[in-house]
Amino acid sequence: MRDVFHDELDEIGAGVAEMIRLVAVAMAKATDALLDADLARAEQVIEADVKVDDLRVELEDRAFQMIARQQPVATDLRVLITTLHLVADLERMGDLALHVAKIARLRFPDAAVPEEARDVIAQMGEVARSLVTKVGDVVEGRDVSLAQAIEAEDDSMDALRRKLFTLVLSPRWAHGTEAAIDMTLLGRYYERYADHAVAVARRTIFIVTGERPGPITNGLSPQR
Amino acid sequence: MRDVFHDELDEIGAGVAEMIRLVAVAMAKATDALLDADLARAEQVIEADVKVDDLRVELEDRAFQMIARQQPVATDLRVLITTLHLVADLERMGDLALHVAKIARLRFPDAAVPEEARDVIAQMGEVARSLVTKVGDVVEGRDVSLAQAIEAEDDSMDALRRKLFTLVLSPRWAHGTEAAIDMTLLGRYYERYADHAVAVARRTIFIVTGERPGPITNGLSPQR
Repeated sequence: MRDVFHDELDEIGAGVAEMIRLVAVAMAKATDALLDADLARAEQVIEADVKVDDLRVELEDRAFQMIARQQPVATDLRVLITTLHLVADLERMGDLALHVAKIARLRFPDAAVPEEARDVIAQMGEVARSLVTKVGDVVEGRDVSLAQAIEAEDDSMDALRRKLFTLVLSPRWAHGTEAAIDMTLLGRYYERYADHAVAVARRTIFIVTGERPGPITNGLSPQR
Repeated sequence: MRDVFHDELDEIGAGVAEMIRLVAVAMAKATDALLDADLARAEQVIEADVKVDDLRVELEDRAFQMIARQQPVATDLRVLITTLHLVADLERMGDLALHVAKIARLRFPDAAVPEEARDVIAQMGEVARSLVTKVGDVVEGRDVSLAQAIEAEDDSMDALRRKLFTLVLSPRWAHGTEAAIDMTLLGRYYERYADHAVAVARRTIFIVTGERPGPITNGLSPQR
């Protein structure tokens, strides 16, 4: 049954999808800024983060108001409560992209990433991009069978982080402590970005599989 | 008026207070384990974290069930929704204490913290302890007057993290890249622990005052 409540739930779902798009773009741009020592791009990421923060506040408020006014039960309530968690994870993903961009800005006009670490960082950016695309597919309801692929991407990210440590701790590392610290923090930021993406996917999949298995039309409101 | 609903709300509040106690003990023990190269204590922290995780699941579930069954409005609903956020922050604080303990375990029987960094790490542990004590006072006593003191502790933590960077980047640092990476990650863990503690306090204060908590600012900005 279509009603105002479910239209509003769809709007919130669209807002979550928009947050996913924004944090995907943020990390992609932050990675480019890092690898190309591109100050303008780093600044764009840093300035754009407020949009993610604002959207989180707006969606959290709307979800709260819907719970307070409409007193939903069962799946509708679970979807709204889950939304509160999703937007918190997504805001944090935006912050982590911003942290990456700040390292690019801090080292400008130098490149923050030494030549032999470029490949690993580029791959971390690529895994982040691929992961968040799959998470978007899960949340928008296009494909909830992606759970395993998402866990595999998360494992790839962890493996890349270990590879980065190996590089930095190698006797051949000739870029000193400051670059080692940058690589340590970058590794941590990409890893946490992936962790939060996985958390978003898991919570969404839990709603879907916990309440109604099978195909759905909208990951945020699987009861319809 | 006392009723079953408010008795249950009190029980959830007691559960949150217990989580605060557990994550306070976890970080205090983790700091001791780190400074004394005490493997047994590190293992205790690592094993005890499951209690924090379980309590989070239990409290999240109870809050959800109360919202679903009792359909509370106004402040009661806000308290329950806030509880969902608080327990997420507190679980994360437990994880961060566990990460600190894991570094102690990884370097055992060596001390993970070189002599000249001991003082800063000890101070970070002390600020964490003091901060989480105040946060407990806010949550248990609804004492909003501690807000400023809590922000000041958070600033102290950020300052200590900068001090740690200064040490590690000093030409006198003679402990190599591995120890530099450990200090970088430890600094990050303590800082994030403090950030989550501040988030817990801000959300609790929001219930009382109705003023939305601001974003957690990273005192290291724009540097890292």
